[in-house]
Amino acid sequence: MKVQAYAASEANGKLEKFNYELGKIGSEHVDIKVHYCGVCHSDLSMLNNEWGMTQFPFVPGHEVVGEIVSIGEEVKNLKVGDKVGLGWFSESCMHCNQCMGGNHNLCPTAEQTIVGRYGGFADYVRCHWSWATPLPEGIDMAKAGPLFCGGITVFNPIILSGVKPTDKVGVIGIGGLGHIALKFLKHWGCEVIAFSSNPAKKKQILDMGADKVINSRDPQELESIAGTLDFILNTTNVNLDWNAYLITLAPKGKLHSVGVVPDPMPIPAFTLISGEKSVGGSPLGSPALTRTMLEFCVRHDIYPIVEEFALENVNEAMQHLEEGKARFRIVLKV
Amino acid sequence: MKVQAYAASEANGKLEKFNYELGKIGSEHVDIKVHYCGVCHSDLSMLNNEWGMTQFPFVPGHEVVGEIVSIGEEVKNLKVGDKVGLGWFSESCMHCNQCMGGNHNLCPTAEQTIVGRYGGFADYVRCHWSWATPLPEGIDMAKAGPLFCGGITVFNPIILSGVKPTDKVGVIGIGGLGHIALKFLKHWGCEVIAFSSNPAKKKQILDMGADKVINSRDPQELESIAGTLDFILNTTNVNLDWNAYLITLAPKGKLHSVGVVPDPMPIPAFTLISGEKSVGGSPLGSPALTRTMLEFCVRHDIYPIVEEFALENVNEAMQHLEEGKARFRIVLKV
Repeated sequence: MKVQAYAASEANGKLEKFNYELGKIGSEHVDIKVHYCGVCHSDLSMLNNEWGMTQFPFVPGHEVVGEIVSIGEEVKNLKVGDKVGLGWFSESCMHCNQCMGGNHNLCPTAEQTIVGRYGGFADYVRCHWSWATPLPEGIDMAKAGPLFCGGITVFNPIILSGVKPTDKVGVIGIGGLGHIALKFLKHWGCEVIAFSSNPAKKKQILDMGADKVINSRDPQELESIAGTLDFILNTTNVNLDWNAYLITLAPKGKLHSVGVVPDPMPIPAFTLISGEKSVGGSPLGSPALTRTMLEFCVRHDIYPIVEEFALENVNEAMQHLEEGKARFRIVLKV
Repeated sequence: MKVQAYAASEANGKLEKFNYELGKIGSEHVDIKVHYCGVCHSDLSMLNNEWGMTQFPFVPGHEVVGEIVSIGEEVKNLKVGDKVGLGWFSESCMHCNQCMGGNHNLCPTAEQTIVGRYGGFADYVRCHWSWATPLPEGIDMAKAGPLFCGGITVFNPIILSGVKPTDKVGVIGIGGLGHIALKFLKHWGCEVIAFSSNPAKKKQILDMGADKVINSRDPQELESIAGTLDFILNTTNVNLDWNAYLITLAPKGKLHSVGVVPDPMPIPAFTLISGEKSVGGSPLGSPALTRTMLEFCVRHDIYPIVEEFALENVNEAMQHLEEGKARFRIVLKV
């Protein structure tokens, strides 16, 4: 089968039409006809080879929703015609302790959808059946794509950290990931503080359900909530005054980063010790947790706020993202 | 009642005989006749005013075991003649959310036994009944003192971090705190790695129950256990290569410090994120957890290895500690 994709031939290059042959399907693989594919900041980082692991020609796209068109003979759980989503991971070994323990996302040999293979800015994409997550009945496919990377990335820490409906929580950075986190936490029953450095977004952030917006550039505003938060999720990729955020935590509070902050985070031991606090991080969640998240989204009508571009206008979409104009997540319609 | 104590009149000063009047007992307080008092490194730090909060004359001592000789009229749970222990905290408010939640150790107004009041290097010491923990039947009082600071400090994180008998764990620094941690974890059922920079201690560390001793100054030895540990407890107060330890953690592993490391710990977000790892800290445990620890110690005959000095030789004991010669914990006999 021939796939019509968009690929860049070099770092920072434009995405151009690119065809490739999928080859015979593996016994445990499925082929997905792409309906929509979200655009994630990681697609841009990979396009610009910021992490030094991009192979060219490079086809981005790891927030796919679509329909199964072909399956290998050993595929479990899926059949042709099923609607599925595909995120950052496209395959894992299924037999290591992490996979056997349900943590396929921590499999040391997990394959990544856009690393060393072709992603979802295309009409078709292939993956292992275990990472093609069935879409629940009633889901809005046009908005669901970003749930498979941005969504599950912020859902996972809420579960990992044992966030409770009675908790007071904070989200740092109300962008593509942060705005989904805010919606999850609001529907969790929490009191939610949004930390944002962009006053222009304030009204929209409150409309999304935040109880309060704190200007993260104002040390006094941070100090005003000292000792109050049970959980803070950082969704930004920038160096911040982490100790100032740790001070806003209540005793036993947790600061959790899903943003790959460039410099090591300077964490004072005394701050952790005196308040039994901790700092953690996590990647995307497991396939089982992705299913749970999708059910939660359908039950509460939780979707990212998306801007839709046609796949042909992918370069325009990438530029929109690069210029920081996305409000809040971009989806390509294939 | 007149108390005969040992006090320093200035930072780095010698401890000399010092008498003070206890005054009328408060309605919720108890007076303890001191039998033994452990010597903790914090006594030395306070004596030398390293934390800038020492008041002189300064009476150290916050690892007391002894016997109740007097009680206020509202005291609960204790009577004259009861054997008790007293640690770092001597009183807490009993009504804040932390106290009401059982976490008296996180009470923001908790009183500290040797901060702004006189400690246990004395024949008598006073405290609130809630922090005078009853000694279980059969405990060895001559060795129990250090459990009330060093012991509970390392027991608390084992509970907080949910360490399981099936876990592989590590302890950094096998000194006063570390050697007790090692014994707790061995009796927990864990596979225990000791990280030590002192090859002379190796045989003794293995005798205490470590399955393996890793030379913490050898990067290759650290690398040899990459990705294997579920929990690491740092008991040292020095700056270490924290990322090297994080790399020895298995996915979902936790690095926990009870050592007040001088510089902020540089923690790379990527290391946390890729392995769902975390870094935490904690102070001493709660009164309820102290009781639980003491029962565990008696059941398994877990005690620190102590060197005993008479209270009159307290300056010799302090010098022994300051020179790093303590093997492994010093106790003063009153």
